[in-house]
Amino acid sequence: MNSELSSLQVKDIGEQGLLERLQRFCPPEIIGDDAAVLVTAPEQSLVVTTDVLVDGVHFSNLTTSPEDAGWRAAAANLSDLAAMGASPLGITVGLGLPGEVSVSWVERLYQGMTECLQKYNTSIVGGDIVRSPVTTLAITAFGQVHPSQIIRRSAAVVGDAIVVTGVHGASRAGLELLLHPELAPSLNNEEKTALIHAHQRPQPRLDVLPILWKILTLRQAQGIASNSQLSVAGMDSSDGLADAIIQICRASGVGAVLEHRQIPVPKTFNHWLTPEQALEYTLYGGEDFELVLCLPQKLASALVQHLGEGAAIVGRITAGSTVLFHDEQKKFPDQVLSLSQGFQHFDS
Amino acid sequence: MNSELSSLQVKDIGEQGLLERLQRFCPPEIIGDDAAVLVTAPEQSLVVTTDVLVDGVHFSNLTTSPEDAGWRAAAANLSDLAAMGASPLGITVGLGLPGEVSVSWVERLYQGMTECLQKYNTSIVGGDIVRSPVTTLAITAFGQVHPSQIIRRSAAVVGDAIVVTGVHGASRAGLELLLHPELAPSLNNEEKTALIHAHQRPQPRLDVLPILWKILTLRQAQGIASNSQLSVAGMDSSDGLADAIIQICRASGVGAVLEHRQIPVPKTFNHWLTPEQALEYTLYGGEDFELVLCLPQKLASALVQHLGEGAAIVGRITAGSTVLFHDEQKKFPDQVLSLSQGFQHFDS
Repeated sequence: MNSELSSLQVKDIGEQGLLERLQRFCPPEIIGDDAAVLVTAPEQSLVVTTDVLVDGVHFSNLTTSPEDAGWRAAAANLSDLAAMGASPLGITVGLGLPGEVSVSWVERLYQGMTECLQKYNTSIVGGDIVRSPVTTLAITAFGQVHPSQIIRRSAAVVGDAIVVTGVHGASRAGLELLLHPELAPSLNNEEKTALIHAHQRPQPRLDVLPILWKILTLRQAQGIASNSQLSVAGMDSSDGLADAIIQICRASGVGAVLEHRQIPVPKTFNHWLTPEQALEYTLYGGEDFELVLCLPQKLASALVQHLGEGAAIVGRITAGSTVLFHDEQKKFPDQVLSLSQGFQHFDS
Repeated sequence: MNSELSSLQVKDIGEQGLLERLQRFCPPEIIGDDAAVLVTAPEQSLVVTTDVLVDGVHFSNLTTSPEDAGWRAAAANLSDLAAMGASPLGITVGLGLPGEVSVSWVERLYQGMTECLQKYNTSIVGGDIVRSPVTTLAITAFGQVHPSQIIRRSAAVVGDAIVVTGVHGASRAGLELLLHPELAPSLNNEEKTALIHAHQRPQPRLDVLPILWKILTLRQAQGIASNSQLSVAGMDSSDGLADAIIQICRASGVGAVLEHRQIPVPKTFNHWLTPEQALEYTLYGGEDFELVLCLPQKLASALVQHLGEGAAIVGRITAGSTVLFHDEQKKFPDQVLSLSQGFQHFDS
């Protein structure tokens, strides 16, 4: 090992850069989705996902109650399971705690996690508690899925419609209202509370899965969809809508067109946000924990109809490798979205 | 909530006290073994265990290379699976890292984990890397087991023999030699290295499981063991031999007699340790990661014979609730072992 390599620090390459270097220690077939899939039986796969959250980095008592921190941590992991098509089996919780943390804070954290888990008929099944100079929460979630129903990022094909299961931008808007309560004087309390609730209590979309499979099974029986068309591509929008579409396109080797006017946003956005702010929250806000799914147009239409309010077809998968943002109303110029640059309109 | 409760801190009740308070958030059937068991199919259960390790608390660059820290972390989790009778499916690794940690340190940590996992035909299947003020390693291991082969702490019955699968005290002795290389001048380098290796590279006893089930299946076929006798109680000795026996007795509602002269220890102990030191390392040293199993005498004898050197019957399960330490040679007085007090001889 030369001295340059041995002096390289984590901050020089970032967490993402380090993760890429460490992938050589993992089986290659495991990498690249919201969660790992392990075949445990002919008719069953185990789906596993893990998150580490650190006080001051991922949550803070300043903006988040312990109940909400617990709910959000559980929801993020359940959303990763939903993104793979898996039903939850349970989560484990590893806690690192300074001695000065109050017991009631920890119990309220567990209360929040449990409320979220109970809503989705699952529970905390194990854990570890250790001393640490910084409060740290490590969650691992387990789920199971029939191998034919695994949703992968890499399965999008040209011609697929892109479905979102709900509005985007609400969580980010809620965070802004928590940090700056004086914003949005034109909204009433109920409207503000709805956005704040979207941030504090995001809903992992496990409810989408049975609806999705019912539609696909029905269409298959009707001969409208062939077996191969039962494959659905997708992931969750935890890191933002733009991120989700770009990640799916990269993994599938395809491009996409995203239609501005088709993206569902909270109705209240135009009352207090500029079009630019609204678009930034919508594309890059993150933590809405909706599903972004790619499937044939007819099936996509049926899915959107069944899911109801908030769900929509927002674009289509194209040949090529670029994700093109298109605004029919020409308020925004067409542009290629990328992870590294964000929305170009706001770089100045 | 009264103010007394709300001001209670983690340090007031300790990690163990907190864990007990938090058990109300978990399904009651999950608690009390080395790992949680989830039924995923009629013929298959999922076993899950998690550990959090914090720099300066659980490992330190002063005594442990990153490779050894990685090996030990992986081995501890695989040992928890072995303690439940489960074969490993994989582990997830959550890392919290300060920016100043060198990339090569992290890669060497992963190298050590991977070396251990490969030896047992398993691998890292997922993970998360985040910024943190303190290096933190959260490992979750999962395995599978046929429901009839789950090893539980609570299944010991009066008359069972207590089997250890190997020597105890070696890991603790190895740590002492690392911290104080000047100790044990009477040992040659090979002898010292063997003890240090036991500390740095503990071997989870997954190899015991197929031997155990082969013996039990054979005896069942011969009509020597009935179906009900196929149930084996046990756990691993990660927190020490005394701890393991006491925990099994508590969970099973039984007592035990532990025979001093039957406990296998490293041959070199009597060359450099006083009998008191040797006994303390043996009973309370911890981290030997052997299995402590309770099963009928005939089966226990067959198991010990198949396992070979280091394995032994060290005592028997009795009625009552006390774990009695007995020294046939009368070097040590008979006494009741307890978790809170340690070996009485050394309290002064």
